[in-house]
Amino acid sequence: MRKHIFYFFLLFFLQISASTAQNKPKYIFYMIGDGMGLNQVHIAETYQAALENRNTVFPLTFTKFPYSTFATSFSLSHGVTDSAAGGTALAVGYKTRNGVLSMDSSRTASYKSIAYFAKERGMKVGITTSVSIDHATPASFYAQQADRNMYYEIGQDLIKSGFDFFGGAGFLSPERTYKKEAAPSLFPQFEKAGYSLAYGLEEYNKIATSADKIILMADKGAAHDALTYAIDRKPEELTLQQITASAIRTLQKDNDNGFFLMVEGGKIDWACHSNDGATAIHETKDFDAAVGEAFRFYEQHPDETLIIVTADHETGGMVLGNGSSTLQLSRIQHQKVSQGALSKKISDLRKSTPNASWDSVKQLLEENTGLWKSVKISEIEENEIKEAYNRSFVQHQNETEKSLYAIDDRIASLAVKSLNRAASISWASGNHSAAYIPIYAIGQGAELFHHKMDNIDIPRKIAEAAGLPMKP
Amino acid sequence: MRKHIFYFFLLFFLQISASTAQNKPKYIFYMIGDGMGLNQVHIAETYQAALENRNTVFPLTFTKFPYSTFATSFSLSHGVTDSAAGGTALAVGYKTRNGVLSMDSSRTASYKSIAYFAKERGMKVGITTSVSIDHATPASFYAQQADRNMYYEIGQDLIKSGFDFFGGAGFLSPERTYKKEAAPSLFPQFEKAGYSLAYGLEEYNKIATSADKIILMADKGAAHDALTYAIDRKPEELTLQQITASAIRTLQKDNDNGFFLMVEGGKIDWACHSNDGATAIHETKDFDAAVGEAFRFYEQHPDETLIIVTADHETGGMVLGNGSSTLQLSRIQHQKVSQGALSKKISDLRKSTPNASWDSVKQLLEENTGLWKSVKISEIEENEIKEAYNRSFVQHQNETEKSLYAIDDRIASLAVKSLNRAASISWASGNHSAAYIPIYAIGQGAELFHHKMDNIDIPRKIAEAAGLPMKP
Repeated sequence: MRKHIFYFFLLFFLQISASTAQNKPKYIFYMIGDGMGLNQVHIAETYQAALENRNTVFPLTFTKFPYSTFATSFSLSHGVTDSAAGGTALAVGYKTRNGVLSMDSSRTASYKSIAYFAKERGMKVGITTSVSIDHATPASFYAQQADRNMYYEIGQDLIKSGFDFFGGAGFLSPERTYKKEAAPSLFPQFEKAGYSLAYGLEEYNKIATSADKIILMADKGAAHDALTYAIDRKPEELTLQQITASAIRTLQKDNDNGFFLMVEGGKIDWACHSNDGATAIHETKDFDAAVGEAFRFYEQHPDETLIIVTADHETGGMVLGNGSSTLQLSRIQHQKVSQGALSKKISDLRKSTPNASWDSVKQLLEENTGLWKSVKISEIEENEIKEAYNRSFVQHQNETEKSLYAIDDRIASLAVKSLNRAASISWASGNHSAAYIPIYAIGQGAELFHHKMDNIDIPRKIAEAAGLPMKP
Repeated sequence: MRKHIFYFFLLFFLQISASTAQNKPKYIFYMIGDGMGLNQVHIAETYQAALENRNTVFPLTFTKFPYSTFATSFSLSHGVTDSAAGGTALAVGYKTRNGVLSMDSSRTASYKSIAYFAKERGMKVGITTSVSIDHATPASFYAQQADRNMYYEIGQDLIKSGFDFFGGAGFLSPERTYKKEAAPSLFPQFEKAGYSLAYGLEEYNKIATSADKIILMADKGAAHDALTYAIDRKPEELTLQQITASAIRTLQKDNDNGFFLMVEGGKIDWACHSNDGATAIHETKDFDAAVGEAFRFYEQHPDETLIIVTADHETGGMVLGNGSSTLQLSRIQHQKVSQGALSKKISDLRKSTPNASWDSVKQLLEENTGLWKSVKISEIEENEIKEAYNRSFVQHQNETEKSLYAIDDRIASLAVKSLNRAASISWASGNHSAAYIPIYAIGQGAELFHHKMDNIDIPRKIAEAAGLPMKP
């Protein structure tokens, strides 16, 4: 009997070792909501329920994941990180100075991102975003540059990466170096390096079966700095969800070695820099739709897939609840366009009708924010907007409110501010805050994400789950 | 061989079942920071590092726990919960209306808290707080009342509970019913029911070895509504940490059946209602010192102890980071007293020197907040404080700022407001916010706390871990 028990034990331990070895994710989704703090997520959940007059939350796809925790996000140089140092921490597992991309704080040594470790393992790699492909967060995964604004040089690093799929709005400086010198266009260089360029989903679909390496961008003529905000988007415009689905398709093609796909919802941050609650909520839900693509893939490959959803930092110090215990979040539904699009409408009116009446401006605000018609506005706030109207349409002094990614009309920003206040949303500033970032995990290795950590631990834990030889 | 394998399997599964059965915590600590949102915790962690000019966090005892996640906190009636509905959710695992204590929203049916399930299991039970013992959060665990303000009736429920240890500042209405009618004092009733009353730690230590059931309160002559804020406390005054240590001692005495101990850090909330960052940080650290007592107990009984640290809601919409990426949180160290104590100092000066000069008031503020001397103040803010001084000391119109638990001098609240702004802290309001509450867990059963949940799930999961027959 002893012998039998010995064999049984042996079998048992071999079994354990084998199953541990097998339990490595073959497909890794690393999804980053830029500026998506815990409150941004909670407000999107609460908004979905508020639309049905329910005092609860309707979860997003990723807030139902079986593991959730949170992490600190300070950078090496600042208590409040920027997206370069934040992206770097999430990509390479080291902190650096604000503004630096995957290099050390002295800007001499380069760090290798988890995407490179995956590539070396033979996995295909995709890097995607709803803003430009050379923006700080996606760039952290494939570029190493002393300054996040070295867009041309970042584009050159893309070629060196040899990664398999890139997706986003486009490139910010494809023909001009950081030193403002003219340079050969990046696009033919991309093609020479084996990338097929697709402008829009239709072009992508045409080449998807034949091309091995693809850079998917917004349609020609569309903005190359970012996809259109979800709240403003026309049906024919490219979405982050479509980019994610396309990335999965290309990375899966003729591939038995699995893949690593980074997806950034880049404009949650932009909306929060403008303190535009409605637009931030729609961007968060739009990012969740991209997570939905990953989740459906997970459902088909539950034993081989790991999805991590997180953020690089919180933006704006967004808070739900500004005095009353009764929330009025459903009021945000009356905002029909982003603050930027509203600014454009006001600017168009100013061009077509320079002396437009207060009533016509008020009507425009009413239609696009619900103020007056559906949401009461205080006399003080109305007077503030009316004063801005007078300066703009009567005295013809055009006033703007500058935030990091937008210069908006002051009339628009005042109206959005009033609606946010009426909808129980408060903002601390137009910059990032130091708040914890949320982490959600599902699939193989998700069980490693169960305690408060630092942002640099996130890629290290993914590497641990996947058996990639990144420093633990 | 088949037979052997069968027996081996049998043995193996019995082993698994047995170890599952054994892995129930015998000692449960349920520690609640009232108003302690994720940001309150993060700011306390960041402050500890900022004091040493380090751009990082120095963790609290509980932020090092191996499991951390977060939960929604909305009540049945409101998007933003109060401490009664919040305490009820954490105590009984059901949501109710704001204001109601462990009864359903129609105020007819009573709910049974997890403390009662523990008591029925034969465990000893302790309920402790840094505010009054009849306050909403502690009361949720032993009382069932239609209104949180029914302090006399809550006191009567204390007697019915038969729980073993109560600790806190005292009782708010021991001789007068909710309907403002005079009633027999609760204290002799407590004694008749078998409780020994201890006013202060010295009295407790005298009776600790002999008494079985104890109600520990602040020293006679001290306030009975709350212990003194940590930032204002004199060495001889009772602390939450001492109450926690005393509770453990009494619950352990002649007891083989384990215990359930609830500890509330009740004044984090009060400080945040006043938007007093320094006082909130000190209260959070003081609550952590109480958690430290539980943690040392855990270290002695690691296989038998479960510690859960959480909150009922966030208060104030507190945010770290109000514009600049460089945090100035270390400036908060210059505040030497709470906003309430500063109000008292100004009020004392007004009484002793009704026409005190601006310079003498400024000096008082300087000494207690560091403004001018160590922290620059803007001209606008200085003028605002000076105007308040003029109205108060020159025109003799005493101005106050009312928050939920304090009526503070306007000069004091303006100075604290300036210091908070200078120290990178922003506030959304003087009320609770809807933000997620944090959850931290260590010990037997801690592994159940790994995903985003609702506040009512927290007691249910504790019950699951402990095998208490609460509805899952």
